[in-house]
Amino acid sequence: MGTVMEQRKRHSVNLSLLRPFTAAFKLQVKETFFPDDPFRHFTGQTAAQKAWTAISYFVPILQWGPKYKSSFFGYDLLAGVTIASLAIPQGISYARLSNIPPIIGLYSSFTPPLVYAVFGSSNNLAVGTVAAASLLLASTIRETVSPETDPEKYLFTFFTAAFFTGVLQLALGMFRLGFLVDFLSRSTITGFMGGTALIIIFQQFKGLLGLQHFTNKTDLVSVVHAVLANRHEWKWQSALLGLGFLVILLAARQVKEKLPRLFWVNAVSPLVVVVLGGVIAYVANGQAHGIPIVGDLKKGLNPISISQLQFQSPYITIAIKAGLVSGFIALAEGIAVGRSLALLKNEQTDGNKEMIAFGIMNIVGSFTSCYLTTGPFSKSAVNYHAGCKTPMSNVVMAVCMMLVLLFLAPLFKYTPLVALAAIIIVAMLGLIELHEMCRLFKVDKFDFCVCMAALLGVVLVKMEVGLMLSVGLSIIRALLHMARPVTCKLGNIPGTELYRDAEQYPDSITNIPGVLILQLGSPIYFVNAKYLRERISRWVEDEENKIKAKGQDLQHIIFDMGGVTAIDNTGIGVLFEVALANPRLKVVEKLLVSEFVDKIGKECFFLCVNEAVSSCRFSLQEANNSEEQV
Amino acid sequence: MGTVMEQRKRHSVNLSLLRPFTAAFKLQVKETFFPDDPFRHFTGQTAAQKAWTAISYFVPILQWGPKYKSSFFGYDLLAGVTIASLAIPQGISYARLSNIPPIIGLYSSFTPPLVYAVFGSSNNLAVGTVAAASLLLASTIRETVSPETDPEKYLFTFFTAAFFTGVLQLALGMFRLGFLVDFLSRSTITGFMGGTALIIIFQQFKGLLGLQHFTNKTDLVSVVHAVLANRHEWKWQSALLGLGFLVILLAARQVKEKLPRLFWVNAVSPLVVVVLGGVIAYVANGQAHGIPIVGDLKKGLNPISISQLQFQSPYITIAIKAGLVSGFIALAEGIAVGRSLALLKNEQTDGNKEMIAFGIMNIVGSFTSCYLTTGPFSKSAVNYHAGCKTPMSNVVMAVCMMLVLLFLAPLFKYTPLVALAAIIIVAMLGLIELHEMCRLFKVDKFDFCVCMAALLGVVLVKMEVGLMLSVGLSIIRALLHMARPVTCKLGNIPGTELYRDAEQYPDSITNIPGVLILQLGSPIYFVNAKYLRERISRWVEDEENKIKAKGQDLQHIIFDMGGVTAIDNTGIGVLFEVALANPRLKVVEKLLVSEFVDKIGKECFFLCVNEAVSSCRFSLQEANNSEEQV
Repeated sequence: MGTVMEQRKRHSVNLSLLRPFTAAFKLQVKETFFPDDPFRHFTGQTAAQKAWTAISYFVPILQWGPKYKSSFFGYDLLAGVTIASLAIPQGISYARLSNIPPIIGLYSSFTPPLVYAVFGSSNNLAVGTVAAASLLLASTIRETVSPETDPEKYLFTFFTAAFFTGVLQLALGMFRLGFLVDFLSRSTITGFMGGTALIIIFQQFKGLLGLQHFTNKTDLVSVVHAVLANRHEWKWQSALLGLGFLVILLAARQVKEKLPRLFWVNAVSPLVVVVLGGVIAYVANGQAHGIPIVGDLKKGLNPISISQLQFQSPYITIAIKAGLVSGFIALAEGIAVGRSLALLKNEQTDGNKEMIAFGIMNIVGSFTSCYLTTGPFSKSAVNYHAGCKTPMSNVVMAVCMMLVLLFLAPLFKYTPLVALAAIIIVAMLGLIELHEMCRLFKVDKFDFCVCMAALLGVVLVKMEVGLMLSVGLSIIRALLHMARPVTCKLGNIPGTELYRDAEQYPDSITNIPGVLILQLGSPIYFVNAKYLRERISRWVEDEENKIKAKGQDLQHIIFDMGGVTAIDNTGIGVLFEVALANPRLKVVEKLLVSEFVDKIGKECFFLCVNEAVSSCRFSLQEANNSEEQV
Repeated sequence: MGTVMEQRKRHSVNLSLLRPFTAAFKLQVKETFFPDDPFRHFTGQTAAQKAWTAISYFVPILQWGPKYKSSFFGYDLLAGVTIASLAIPQGISYARLSNIPPIIGLYSSFTPPLVYAVFGSSNNLAVGTVAAASLLLASTIRETVSPETDPEKYLFTFFTAAFFTGVLQLALGMFRLGFLVDFLSRSTITGFMGGTALIIIFQQFKGLLGLQHFTNKTDLVSVVHAVLANRHEWKWQSALLGLGFLVILLAARQVKEKLPRLFWVNAVSPLVVVVLGGVIAYVANGQAHGIPIVGDLKKGLNPISISQLQFQSPYITIAIKAGLVSGFIALAEGIAVGRSLALLKNEQTDGNKEMIAFGIMNIVGSFTSCYLTTGPFSKSAVNYHAGCKTPMSNVVMAVCMMLVLLFLAPLFKYTPLVALAAIIIVAMLGLIELHEMCRLFKVDKFDFCVCMAALLGVVLVKMEVGLMLSVGLSIIRALLHMARPVTCKLGNIPGTELYRDAEQYPDSITNIPGVLILQLGSPIYFVNAKYLRERISRWVEDEENKIKAKGQDLQHIIFDMGGVTAIDNTGIGVLFEVALANPRLKVVEKLLVSEFVDKIGKECFFLCVNEAVSSCRFSLQEANNSEEQV
């Protein structure tokens, strides 16, 4: 016994290390806002080198530009042209989804990609408009401004919303708040994207059936009602043409899936459908025969829109609201896409730097007649598969769009709306990840609920409701996890000095006379202090009932504190007079500050459970001996 | 080396225990909603006994009633009379604070205490109205109904709000959601109570100065403006009398603090002030000389108000809003009071049972012309110090109130408003815990910020704003803690097989050639997966830079998983090809379900860090040997 006691004295818990508040606070700030330690690149540089490192950190083109190899250009050219062919139909489609002039969709594929090429750090991202944000913007802004009665103000509010989106994204990036995006879990994004894809598909019944009247709402019930109530407007010509386009697009997707090398067949298929549809509509004089077309598109590059931003009430309120919500979602999509494509190439992306790039891109966009842009899933995946090497592919796309705007725009006048509907439907089908939903159901039922909350909320009520429900559920789960931390009884693994969860290791030895060992496994906070107190008293009561039959008494309780990473004010109250094994640095600090260590005495702290057990046994023996002597 | 390997085979991580989903789910539900295991009392009882246990669980008077000793009654009588003497002035004061007729405050101290005596389980709680909830109700309800132009509907909306408060509290208790109250931390409550006390004191300038005109807002700026703008209405008679009363009340408080046995001096002082004030006002004909009085109070018990509940728009909306918010706050106060007084007597309180009692009490109250009641700090503390033994003291108080209502009510007509103002001010001063705020600043700066957010939010903006700010900050802190979990590098404590935080134990041995040991200390979730990946790669990079100088290579990474209590879908991605030491039950289960164990192989799992290190050393040696042989 004596040797154990000696050993204990040699290796005791370090109760002298108390970091000053400022040092601990600095470390906390660093881990919270600079986990990637961006300043490490500055060590050992001269002032001029430091300035250059800082500038090229914010303007990545200065890093990859000088190193650009001519051999890259072939790849970037191919990728750029491919995504441009996708940008034209998608730009027009999503602009129509927002009820803004189709030309705005083309404008939005010109300046933003150029800006991103300068400030963006992802080599795979392709910039463009996105369906989910387009619909969300439209449904928010039309609450205040009507696109039918005041189309001009409606459009200007879109520009203003893009401006605030940019400001939000820039601010998040500058203040290193990129981690906020991490609170949108994969389950939430899967459900939200799936639900949004579904309601966007519902919206396409208007185009597919050539309806004149439709609903402004997005939920399933309203849409079904609108489709059925306007039965007399259904046009078979439109529906037939739409089915034909759908077949073409789905066939092209099948080709890509069977023969991945022919990915470009799928990538250009939307443009093929648009051109084909335009020819049919022109030849057959479609408009007169139940096939509505896009209508006039003006030649020319983006007009300056800076004076059209609306900074007066009520437009500014609605623009801020729409801009922030859709900007946050667009950010989540853009960053998730960039990150997952980078992982495939084993590259790194910096979320905060990407946010700054998105922010500048949207601010400049709002000055040049563009609405919200980000890095959409579909386009970026095409860019990646087309073999892009650097952000140069975005420059190529922008040049292509410039040529289209300068010379070809009027040709797209004859694009039938039904062709756009077909393109959107097929694009949206790709966003419904049934396979992932099944996997979630198998691996984690709660994650599946989070995903379904988002999906059903979006489909049955509203996009924001679905998102909030899902994020709310995730936060409640996180809080519940804090409120109900795991505790377990430890037993000695036979033949070792180790103590492990007795449930996990059923052959461990738990009947150590007079001693109960519990493991607490999480920060002890105000949210769980009361629970822990109750749970511990239940453990103690159970143990007492068990050993009472044997005529024994429970004399010592040992807490294994190895998993307790922090403790607060209220939490200290949980640690009544017990032996504490392996308390961590932060916990020891708090116990020192609150004078708890002095209260219970340094002899109650042990480096490991085994030493605490030895000490308890020793004191039990001494008590027995003295009893016998008496 | 061989012996270590043998030992490892004997004691390996249990990778076979995978609980079925339903069992794990059941356990989770039990820990979440029934942490106090209320069903344990039913084991080994007959059906009749079980029914009796269940009924007496919900109606505690059946437990303590039959055991009631006549010796208790003396104590309960004294305590009951003392709190009744406090209930009269407080009831009138807080009703005036809400702009409802003063008699409602007296009604609210009659039926609710009777109901609580039947259903309540705390022996110390005294039931009554509270200042914070009174002011919150008034400021919410007057947004929709004006107490000046439509006093009847205004009052009826108070009853309706009490009804919904009761429904909320009953539902929370029935569904075992009592733990929600734990999310209001001590820091939040300290700040909120302090801020509320301050704004209630500000409101008393109206009474102290005898003003006719005042503001309906509660924030500091509005109140200061209202006091200054109405300078011409200041009445020196009122102010002088008020100062006199303040001196009496503060002196009584001093007596209590110096001589705790004379607590009753402080307890009856408000009643003394009311009686004294009434006599002065009557004798001096105060109303004619700048001392406004309460006015007529009708004799008689509570009239039935069930038909006056307002279930039509807009009253129902505002009643639900006011009822839920103030009900939640009242609940937090009531439960916190009950719990802390019970701790002093070493008794247990059951939060869920208390909620049910509060719920029934408020529902019955709303039927009998009462507004929101709970267990206020001040009254319960007096009850405790007066030596109450059981809820019988509430019955005594109710009987006293009945006598007052039946015979004495009209006498209180002459109570000067300035006396009520003085009583409220002194009661509120007791709720500003400066000492606790200083302690928070010393022990935990963030807790102090949470407290100040509540206080300043309440004082400068609005009560709800302060509360939401503070709760929001607490939740953000909890989430940040999840988003930025602690990681540390482990070193071997010399002469032992233990591995501990190298920062905490500076003399531990960290230079184990080719091996890096990291401790992950929290659940690995979507919120922290990306951070952990970055942080780990920084640890690895630092280690590589350090050992490169010595010409060594980093070959093995070991994760100490003892502190990782759970892992989700996204989190599994963090565990790349490393050795995992001591993974816990829940983590092993998830790794099994997601087929991660099969992917990295069972040989990567170790029972403790030491065995993982031995195994790594062994494989490094073998590699060296084979190199040498080549």
